Amino acid sequence: MARKIIVSMDFLDEKLKERVAEASRKLGFEPVFYDKAKDIGPEIADAEILFGSNMQDYLKEASSMKWFCNTYAGCERYMNPGVWPKQECLFTNSSGAYGLGISEHIVMVLLMMLRRMPEYQRDLAEKKWTFYEPIRSVHGLKVTILGTGDIGTHTARSLTAMGAEVRGIRRDVTKKSDSAFKEIWATEDIDKILPDTDALIMAVPSTSETTHIIDRERMNLLPKGAYIINVGRGAALDQKALIDALNSEHLAGAALDVMIPEPLPADHPLWNAKNILLTPHCSGDTALYYAKEKVVDMFLENLELYAAGKPMKRMVDLKQGY
Amino acid sequence: MARKIIVSMDFLDEKLKERVAEASRKLGFEPVFYDKAKDIGPEIADAEILFGSNMQDYLKEASSMKWFCNTYAGCERYMNPGVWPKQECLFTNSSGAYGLGISEHIVMVLLMMLRRMPEYQRDLAEKKWTFYEPIRSVHGLKVTILGTGDIGTHTARSLTAMGAEVRGIRRDVTKKSDSAFKEIWATEDIDKILPDTDALIMAVPSTSETTHIIDRERMNLLPKGAYIINVGRGAALDQKALIDALNSEHLAGAALDVMIPEPLPADHPLWNAKNILLTPHCSGDTALYYAKEKVVDMFLENLELYAAGKPMKRMVDLKQGY
Repeated sequence: MARKIIVSMDFLDEKLKERVAEASRKLGFEPVFYDKAKDIGPEIADAEILFGSNMQDYLKEASSMKWFCNTYAGCERYMNPGVWPKQECLFTNSSGAYGLGISEHIVMVLLMMLRRMPEYQRDLAEKKWTFYEPIRSVHGLKVTILGTGDIGTHTARSLTAMGAEVRGIRRDVTKKSDSAFKEIWATEDIDKILPDTDALIMAVPSTSETTHIIDRERMNLLPKGAYIINVGRGAALDQKALIDALNSEHLAGAALDVMIPEPLPADHPLWNAKNILLTPHCSGDTALYYAKEKVVDMFLENLELYAAGKPMKRMVDLKQGY
Repeated sequence: MARKIIVSMDFLDEKLKERVAEASRKLGFEPVFYDKAKDIGPEIADAEILFGSNMQDYLKEASSMKWFCNTYAGCERYMNPGVWPKQECLFTNSSGAYGLGISEHIVMVLLMMLRRMPEYQRDLAEKKWTFYEPIRSVHGLKVTILGTGDIGTHTARSLTAMGAEVRGIRRDVTKKSDSAFKEIWATEDIDKILPDTDALIMAVPSTSETTHIIDRERMNLLPKGAYIINVGRGAALDQKALIDALNSEHLAGAALDVMIPEPLPADHPLWNAKNILLTPHCSGDTALYYAKEKVVDMFLENLELYAAGKPMKRMVDLKQGY
């Protein structure tokens, strides 16, 4: 009997399903496809492998599971007690599928803020032909990226190519970082680099260590007129302090794709902060076909390693949370 | 007596005026500064050099002028009969000051269209949390840039670094183009490359040869779902055909920073075309300090060559129009 893979996600088209099915069968596995985890039913107990989105309420029933592959990069929903079945399981994520798309979002919102595009658009919506001065350039801009993973690396490459001076901040500076980073700083030295930062880009996972890592004090360390972009997780930033820093014009702008809560209620004060550019957590989803393909390709790469009994890539450390 | 330079532009701060004055005096020239050409008066007849913006109605009175340096890149306003004084003059422009800033505008509007940002912003303005799918990536995008000068080259470098496949179109393919262009096509072959183009970027000067270079027929050669960006001159594109191509959804979007007329009257049909992103000719002005500095630096570089009797850079060919 073929070993069973349950594939549960709503973004695969027929072409990608076919790609998963063909590669799985070659390795002696049989995939079964579901759009949503709630559709799976008791057959979840028979699966050796689960490859899916939003599985946190269902994994505990997967009593034969040996490996779970999360279609997302962020894994905080799987860190809570009671999520996992009793037996030990391998756990991988899809870090690497979303960084490219998210970096394009970052470049876009950074340029929009530097070039005062929201102000232009407000006037243009009323068919007014006005002109705003000054605007700023990415060229020569001092950019600090908190997080040097998939997102940070793609962003550094694009912004460095456009002439920015890009510095990365990471926990472990002994690890190799991409050459697009001009400098790498350790997380504990963050307060030294913030005063020399024109734009702070936050791309860190949600862990206990990153909660409010950018608080009121650190926002005040940024020079007047700096920008903040957050695409990681909303909890990494003190939103109340951000609203104050924007409304007092200490910060020239902020672009948040993640926030607390999501969706943001219509009466939340973030909506009305000065020079804020909110987006509905859309920077890194599978709306981009590139991401869908990459999620599948990375799973199949690991499936081959798994079948051969070799160590897989993109293993998640349940203690570190990513 | 010092040889006189009339400097007439409204964007120099004290620091930049000082830079011009100091360098000029070292070479035996005396600059006189005006904010606008109309303020100059009869002393224009004494100037050996004019360095200014919007001088087309005043140059004919500059009866001692030997060299005019235009602060802009576009020179079509100096091509009309009666603009120039009777004697022969050298004519240079400031091509090279604006390309970097304009390329940032291009990257911004391209990303905004690919990522459906105007749709997101419409919903977000009403505090609605919606999600649009699909979006597209610069990665793998087939981009064709009409014009391989300062703007085209900077744009090609940024988009190539972001993973696009960038092709350039230029009149003279025997001239050396930047290595960021994957291919260079001759203007007469444009119809062959348009069907394989996801995004067409127009960055050509306004000359008789470029008028309506993108007409209805050529828009139809673009594949369904393509994008057009125009930052060169409005006359290069048939606006009526563009409106039709947008409203029929043959094109997925267009971003125009130049159009006819400017400012665009409130009742002009361009405002209401589907998926159009208009900006008020703001992509390449001196709102960017980088551009102001570069205009001054390039003038002073040429002033040194002029004083030494050597050939200057950025000479404008009155016959070609750029």
